[in-house]
Amino acid sequence: MRILLTNDDGITAKGIQVLCKSLSDMADISVVAPDGNRSAVGHGITLEHPILLREVEMDCGGVFGYAISGTPADCVKLAIQGNLVPMPDIVISGINQGQNLGTDVLYSGTVSAAIEGAQQGVPAIAVSLTDYAHDDFRYAASFTKKLCQYLAGQGLPKDTLLNVNIPPLPAEDIKGVRVTKLCLMRYINVFETRVDPKGRKYFWQGGEVLEESCRDPDTDIEAIRNNEVSVTPIHFDLTNYRIMNQVKEWHLSS
Amino acid sequence: MRILLTNDDGITAKGIQVLCKSLSDMADISVVAPDGNRSAVGHGITLEHPILLREVEMDCGGVFGYAISGTPADCVKLAIQGNLVPMPDIVISGINQGQNLGTDVLYSGTVSAAIEGAQQGVPAIAVSLTDYAHDDFRYAASFTKKLCQYLAGQGLPKDTLLNVNIPPLPAEDIKGVRVTKLCLMRYINVFETRVDPKGRKYFWQGGEVLEESCRDPDTDIEAIRNNEVSVTPIHFDLTNYRIMNQVKEWHLSS
Repeated sequence: MRILLTNDDGITAKGIQVLCKSLSDMADISVVAPDGNRSAVGHGITLEHPILLREVEMDCGGVFGYAISGTPADCVKLAIQGNLVPMPDIVISGINQGQNLGTDVLYSGTVSAAIEGAQQGVPAIAVSLTDYAHDDFRYAASFTKKLCQYLAGQGLPKDTLLNVNIPPLPAEDIKGVRVTKLCLMRYINVFETRVDPKGRKYFWQGGEVLEESCRDPDTDIEAIRNNEVSVTPIHFDLTNYRIMNQVKEWHLSS
Repeated sequence: MRILLTNDDGITAKGIQVLCKSLSDMADISVVAPDGNRSAVGHGITLEHPILLREVEMDCGGVFGYAISGTPADCVKLAIQGNLVPMPDIVISGINQGQNLGTDVLYSGTVSAAIEGAQQGVPAIAVSLTDYAHDDFRYAASFTKKLCQYLAGQGLPKDTLLNVNIPPLPAEDIKGVRVTKLCLMRYINVFETRVDPKGRKYFWQGGEVLEESCRDPDTDIEAIRNNEVSVTPIHFDLTNYRIMNQVKEWHLSS
């Protein structure tokens, strides 16, 4: 099996290094990842600048990776469409430090890289540890490995990806695995307004998730609140088929 | 009616100025747009830097707009979640110079801004002129105005947006309006490899759409090939409900 690894925390981040080590006994690993942090860049790609790269030795059995000056989506595009590495059987993006839940996946470089893999016809997994400080990626890596085996064995449509979020807990404290849908995230206090030394307003973006968001147990965020692993199947066709007929009745041509 | 305008070509681009002029007799217009070109930034948002803004006088009846140092999605978030402007009834992103068709909408700053509007519960429209040089936005602006009237009158689910692409033709040469689905875009020659003066490889990203992509007349790209306006209803829930049960049968908890 050939696996392409990428992420949005950058090629030197611990999450991708641990994943590389964990998977290297079951697959040929290629690594194409950003040369630094690219969190929250969404599905952006680099069209207005050249994309630079350098080789980097990974800490996993002599694997060399490519550090790229672009976005996570660029990494997957360059790896596959640019033939930078052999065609992978699975693309894995992660392990991200921090959650990628609900509609926030639209902002996520991690998830967008996996979506890009699926767009290129390669099944893909985005994996995130839902904590910004927790330092132990072992359970997340072993779960990802298990998921790769299922994906290779059971198969999924080629245009499919899985968005996986893992609570920052040791294996024995994980309550199970739930197949979930994305929560429609609602935030409060998104912008903090400040004044610069010249008296001009500026803003820091952040915010807190509304406590009452998505109490439905089938949502990804509720699975995490319950100390379960969340696995959400994702597609990338944004067409809203349900309301095509409604808009057709507007008779816009007339 | 209150309309929030944004784009990804920047606040001084002709497309947004023409739209502002065209709509200012039917609505109170607010403008929050990037301070420069942000094409292909996808749904990226700015979390690691502060967001700066300055007021700009638009060329449409005394309207003042805000030029923002962030992405198109930041503009909509700051406008609505940051209460920078009164709550709009419709968000319009555009008129973009260049097409936003098929799965490429994932890369699009223009479309992502409209998606952000829908995420905030405001019906939204992304409008693009499918040519990078054509300078006449009049038909595109008048069609957008008509669409706003339908949207206000007929209503659509609050989480809905419309992705509109308009051929670069005078009104009399437009063959009609087609309600479409997004094409699964396939590209060739995506990367051009070059060598820098120090002998290192680098890449320019671009590519050409495969001629045989999406010959289905219901796709957006085929509508444009046929000189029709394309209107695609879009949603932003990436959950692939169809295969949730399939993944549940993997019994990942065991």
